[in-house]
Amino acid sequence: MSTEAKTLKGFRDIMPADALAKERMLDIVKKVFQSFGFVPIETPHLEYLSCLNSQGGEEISKEIYHFKDSGGRDVALRFDQTVPLARFISQHENELQLPFKRYAIGNVFRGENPQAGRYREFTQCDFDFIGADSILSDFEIIQVICSSMKALGINDFTVAINSRKILNAFLSYIGVDGVETVLRIVDKLAKIGSEKVLSLLVDEGISESNSRKILEFVSVRSNGLNSEFLQILDTYASLTEQLSESISELKEIIKLANVSEVCVGKIEVDFSIARGLAYYTGVVYETTLNNLPSIGSVCSGGRYDDLTKSFGKENLSGVGASIGIDRLIAGLEKLGLSSSASTAVNLMVANIDEDLMSEVSMLADSLRSNGISVELYPTVTKLKKQLGFAHKKQIPYVAILGQDELSNGIVALKNMSTGDQENLPVAEVIKKVK
Amino acid sequence: MSTEAKTLKGFRDIMPADALAKERMLDIVKKVFQSFGFVPIETPHLEYLSCLNSQGGEEISKEIYHFKDSGGRDVALRFDQTVPLARFISQHENELQLPFKRYAIGNVFRGENPQAGRYREFTQCDFDFIGADSILSDFEIIQVICSSMKALGINDFTVAINSRKILNAFLSYIGVDGVETVLRIVDKLAKIGSEKVLSLLVDEGISESNSRKILEFVSVRSNGLNSEFLQILDTYASLTEQLSESISELKEIIKLANVSEVCVGKIEVDFSIARGLAYYTGVVYETTLNNLPSIGSVCSGGRYDDLTKSFGKENLSGVGASIGIDRLIAGLEKLGLSSSASTAVNLMVANIDEDLMSEVSMLADSLRSNGISVELYPTVTKLKKQLGFAHKKQIPYVAILGQDELSNGIVALKNMSTGDQENLPVAEVIKKVK
Repeated sequence: MSTEAKTLKGFRDIMPADALAKERMLDIVKKVFQSFGFVPIETPHLEYLSCLNSQGGEEISKEIYHFKDSGGRDVALRFDQTVPLARFISQHENELQLPFKRYAIGNVFRGENPQAGRYREFTQCDFDFIGADSILSDFEIIQVICSSMKALGINDFTVAINSRKILNAFLSYIGVDGVETVLRIVDKLAKIGSEKVLSLLVDEGISESNSRKILEFVSVRSNGLNSEFLQILDTYASLTEQLSESISELKEIIKLANVSEVCVGKIEVDFSIARGLAYYTGVVYETTLNNLPSIGSVCSGGRYDDLTKSFGKENLSGVGASIGIDRLIAGLEKLGLSSSASTAVNLMVANIDEDLMSEVSMLADSLRSNGISVELYPTVTKLKKQLGFAHKKQIPYVAILGQDELSNGIVALKNMSTGDQENLPVAEVIKKVK
Repeated sequence: MSTEAKTLKGFRDIMPADALAKERMLDIVKKVFQSFGFVPIETPHLEYLSCLNSQGGEEISKEIYHFKDSGGRDVALRFDQTVPLARFISQHENELQLPFKRYAIGNVFRGENPQAGRYREFTQCDFDFIGADSILSDFEIIQVICSSMKALGINDFTVAINSRKILNAFLSYIGVDGVETVLRIVDKLAKIGSEKVLSLLVDEGISESNSRKILEFVSVRSNGLNSEFLQILDTYASLTEQLSESISELKEIIKLANVSEVCVGKIEVDFSIARGLAYYTGVVYETTLNNLPSIGSVCSGGRYDDLTKSFGKENLSGVGASIGIDRLIAGLEKLGLSSSASTAVNLMVANIDEDLMSEVSMLADSLRSNGISVELYPTVTKLKKQLGFAHKKQIPYVAILGQDELSNGIVALKNMSTGDQENLPVAEVIKKVK
């Protein structure tokens, strides 16, 4: 009886070309993180359900994969890496130097209905700054986003920023309760349009006049601090002290961005940005590829000042963001910006004589010790078949060693793109291929 | 109400120093894998229980984390990466070039009772060679093991090899059934000693005479092909054709190892090596650190010729191994061979004046763009506190920028190990720190 070989609905395998691209991209962003002093940590994929459920809000709670383990514990697969970070910080506070900056690259799980390009398991590449309430830390997260994008060779992107505080202050000013509900609806603006957002707000019992004010508010957007935009900000700032304070914070961040070589021209203020997750309390970020806005944000995050509160720690603030690496890879592929190399091999050693197994193995060995990536064809078959394999795998050179070559101390080297073949000593093969 | 911040029993967080060490080690072994033509793939952490249960045997089956998902599917967390590889190969056979060599670095889950240094979630670093039944592929796995160890700076290690075929042939010769049971007991030899193995075998209904023969057989061990050892091999080989064939295969592999610079002197034949997992059919490997054998094998594997059979594919053979990276890190720590750097930061920029936030941010930026890893202290606090932070994090330099320095176009650079401080222009700081 045989089992059907298939992945679960919403799950997928990552094939070599994509996995290689992902590895290279992660290597690049890790270097960026480290250049800002972020260090890696790892937390388990599986945690107590109560830990994960302690933050994140109702929306996400429905999507958590959870079950009872064989010891009867309620356990769950992490749905993000921010709540586990809060648990980590609370648990290890005494072992850490604050402020603490960590990155974490790992998979998270959400049982949502899979849509095009969205999966139930995906990789998040998080970087967070814990124990710092200075806006320099909010700004540093933006710098890391911009530096990462540029290091990945992406120059056409926009980091949209907003502040939960501004939205909260505005809702409080017009006398609307239920911030979380409004946020959830407003978060859909780009997807469903303003008319539908308006009717959803009215459905929640918000007056039409207030709903229109909310819509007007969330339409505020600008990619710089031009005078017209500053005037709009000043008008809102003049309404209440809360609004004045939170808008002035945002302006400080934009000023820092304007003098940062890596950020200048990349930052846009967008009052509609809310982020779906309940734990954000301050500045929030979303990053879109200018030529492919349809795939949504490839790097999102924000400030969460109360994240460790649910673990009994009051005063640890945090700010961070997460690169959606899978979505970014898909986006770069669509834009034709990704490398699609399915191999990193420089040369294949063919295997044409049962009696020469040791010799071809030694040849491969000595090429490798000279820094060449070598695939040794493992079985003696027709040379044509072996060359076909090398061709399909786009391996640039094939080295052939038979009894004749061996007795003459040479190797036949075939250039797979020109088809040329020449007899060379090993030292020459190394020079040629390197 | 607050939630207790703790990880599940048998699970753990990996702190920055260990996570940095792990990242560096994985970068090194990935380069080795690629130099042999292995490419990365990723498979989901969560699979159909039926897929994972299709191989691996009874022992492991008890340890699988499984549950019903919200769609009523029986799902499970992978317990290794070999069974998912079999599923992957069966599912994607038409998209792959055979022979196919992949590596996969990921976490696996086993609900066993946690012991010292063993966790319910741990990282495996697998490399496998699919669709090749040549002994060159068995040997290549040994080469990759030896190359990886050496690239990691480990020179004192032994790869013990054996063959399931030899053990099967011998049991069949003496007329003992239940190979799996014998394997499971024999696998405990190093842990519980020969007397206990003997009594466990007898408990299973094997005659004492046969049990003693099994014990004598599994005591065969040699680190080379000396004449005495060859004579023992020849004696066993002379018993049946099966034994003769399987022993001659093992001898071929040892011959290849003897002419390989990276393997020579590292290989030992050990007839007691069985490996716990049911899917192995041929050569099996275990790797121990000579100065720390007590931690067990840090890289194990073997040949599994029928792995894809349970998915309805008959003829795909495979051979591979897995580096137990967590165990290896623990081992290197015990041996004092690991680096324990908890930061990769070269310099910290202090933050001493609220009015100079843009300026310190720009200073940090310009140092980074010159290849220096820079931590910017995010809040304005007493310099002493900031220096204390840099000291604890072992950051070698601190740059201080106040109004005086700014107006003179210089930076005060403090060398944290000597305590010396000098005023330098930024260009000089860059030269000094790099």
